[in-house]
Amino acid sequence: MANNKSFSEDLDKIREKSPLVHSITNYVVMNFTANTLLAIGASPVMAHAPEEMEEMVSISSALVLNIGTLSNKWIESMHIAGKTAKKQGKPVVLDPVGAGATSMRTRSAHELLDEIKPEIIRGNASEILAVAKSRVSTKGVESTLDAEEAVEIAKELAAKTGSVISISGKTDFITDGENIETVEGGDPLMGRITGTGCAASVLTAAFASVNKNYFMAATKAMMAMGAAGEAAAREADAPGTFQIKFIDALYKLDL
Amino acid sequence: MANNKSFSEDLDKIREKSPLVHSITNYVVMNFTANTLLAIGASPVMAHAPEEMEEMVSISSALVLNIGTLSNKWIESMHIAGKTAKKQGKPVVLDPVGAGATSMRTRSAHELLDEIKPEIIRGNASEILAVAKSRVSTKGVESTLDAEEAVEIAKELAAKTGSVISISGKTDFITDGENIETVEGGDPLMGRITGTGCAASVLTAAFASVNKNYFMAATKAMMAMGAAGEAAAREADAPGTFQIKFIDALYKLDL
Amino acid sequence: MANNKSFSEDLDKIREKSPLVHSITNYVVMNFTANTLLAIGASPVMAHAPEEMEEMVSISSALVLNIGTLSNKWIESMHIAGKTAKKQGKPVVLDPVGAGATSMRTRSAHELLDEIKPEIIRGNASEILAVAKSRVSTKGVESTLDAEEAVEIAKELAAKTGSVISISGKTDFITDGENIETVEGGDPLMGRITGTGCAASVLTAAFASVNKNYFMAATKAMMAMGAAGEAAAREADAPGTFQIKFIDALYKLDL
Repeated sequence: MANNKSFSEDLDKIREKSPLVHSITNYVVMNFTANTLLAIGASPVMAHAPEEMEEMVSISSALVLNIGTLSNKWIESMHIAGKTAKKQGKPVVLDPVGAGATSMRTRSAHELLDEIKPEIIRGNASEILAVAKSRVSTKGVESTLDAEEAVEIAKELAAKTGSVISISGKTDFITDGENIETVEGGDPLMGRITGTGCAASVLTAAFASVNKNYFMAATKAMMAMGAAGEAAAREADAPGTFQIKFIDALYKLDL
Repeated sequence: MANNKSFSEDLDKIREKSPLVHSITNYVVMNFTANTLLAIGASPVMAHAPEEMEEMVSISSALVLNIGTLSNKWIESMHIAGKTAKKQGKPVVLDPVGAGATSMRTRSAHELLDEIKPEIIRGNASEILAVAKSRVSTKGVESTLDAEEAVEIAKELAAKTGSVISISGKTDFITDGENIETVEGGDPLMGRITGTGCAASVLTAAFASVNKNYFMAATKAMMAMGAAGEAAAREADAPGTFQIKFIDALYKLDL
Repeated sequence: MANNKSFSEDLDKIREKSPLVHSITNYVVMNFTANTLLAIGASPVMAHAPEEMEEMVSISSALVLNIGTLSNKWIESMHIAGKTAKKQGKPVVLDPVGAGATSMRTRSAHELLDEIKPEIIRGNASEILAVAKSRVSTKGVESTLDAEEAVEIAKELAAKTGSVISISGKTDFITDGENIETVEGGDPLMGRITGTGCAASVLTAAFASVNKNYFMAATKAMMAMGAAGEAAAREADAPGTFQIKFIDALYKLDL
């Protein structure tokens, strides 16, 4: 299980190596997730032109595919980037933002899952359930919306796909298909700013770039989120200030 | 006339129902307006792919069309989304950012006005005048730049189109073609951060999603802006801090 | 050499005239650079549709071309906007973000350099070196990564192209091909938030819009960055707060 010592070791590695994390992500959160990566000690790059995907992935240490503001062009770039990352043995984190909300998002998430086989999928319970649908036989996929119930479905999805699944919520659940890790922490204000989930995904990529045990990497990223969220909440009683203090807390993080 | 009691009732409804507001908006303000909606208690979604417009509108309670960073593709999506919203009886707020600055913007605003017939148009005086041009016979459209003079033109535009017109400025004016409501408040620092007008538009959509009297909804949104702006200004003497305190103030709003 | 008096005069002109600066820039920093311009007293506009480039440039006082999140469509718009600005005698600032990282970026930077001949190019040392490659004969282009060594290459590039070159780093170097100006100041936290370089580019455009001596304008923009960075660092010990205080400091700037 992830403990504070191994967490600190990986955090130190991020701060020392400053791994470049390439995100193809949604417009809404780009500034916030770039600052999230810089605060933890990693380096962000955002690029989406198909013409530069291979080169950009080649100089990066991890890739984030976030479908929050999709277009067909960007999906195409996600596939090119994803395939390049896999060929080069670099971890891919899929954030299926809004999967289940529209068929384009659900289908895009499924296609990325099937063709790229991301090392880690990070989403909230309903997004993970949308991804699991038609991939998992477990009853309850249709109706379950509770993170704790969703974790069994996620476990089956992880076992079937080989992807580590990270479900964020009041309690976070991370599973590799065999084991389940839980992470407590955070604060309700995290749900009152946009991009907290997306921030969790880029931190997951940062930890995955320094730890090939992706189950541990995904867990540690959620530990970082939880600790920073709690620290921020001690200094903020409203979401504007919270967002700023959250970035500060990631920078000062020392579990 | 909107008073504090009816304002509080609508604010409570937003906080209770957390209506999903779908924005097709400009890149510059997406993070800020998403956080604006979360702060007031609503839920934001941003999506622009034509393929998912109908589904996204179908799960939303209101739609914002903001032409701040236009492209032909996005205009196409705005029309699809707008028509879907109208078919489903969901309020559409048009924010004609920069109408008058380029012919593409003026034309796009006119086409959205004519084809979608938005429930509410919110802009500053010069944008509203640009929209009114060739739609309104009142003299002075060519030269007027003062909000107080613009309101008569806006009133005629509202009467002719059936859209409620909301003009933001030092004093805000809202008209349904018969009545004119004025809202005082705010602070000059609101003009020193980007996206204040766009924030007013998404708040207008949030209030319109809980109050079918769109004249009242538009007025209450400007009351929220004014009150939050004043509260933020009490804690900030410069625009960086102001932006943060404005979000905090919306969250804490209790007229 | 730039002194505090001439700096203050140009700053006053920006605050008085509020020049409109048109940016075609990357998605990540749009909100931050728009707020940077508003804080210093200028006005931002972002637009990228080829159809409105000529009109938008016509009402603007300066143009920023930033290749941070490129696509072929946007490059096309950059060329239209750049040519229009040159025809109208308006200063163009090129920010070759990530030049050297991918061949698409390097090629785009070279094409913009050759075809638009920007008045000022602002980047970090490695970006400037990537732009200089194949344009400058000086040995060391291949390997040099140090700002102080890069400045000689930049000087040759400036002499050959006629563009003022502004290299940001711990010490900033500005050269017109004959003279070299250095600017100290700033803070390491500037490297821990995204968009500091992009902010320097829009400030460079703002100063260039009020001072036709582009060597001086570029220098003064870096003086503003340095002074605001130092002021922000006095009030912040982490990057979230730093970003906010940096905007505040630009607003309060009074060297």
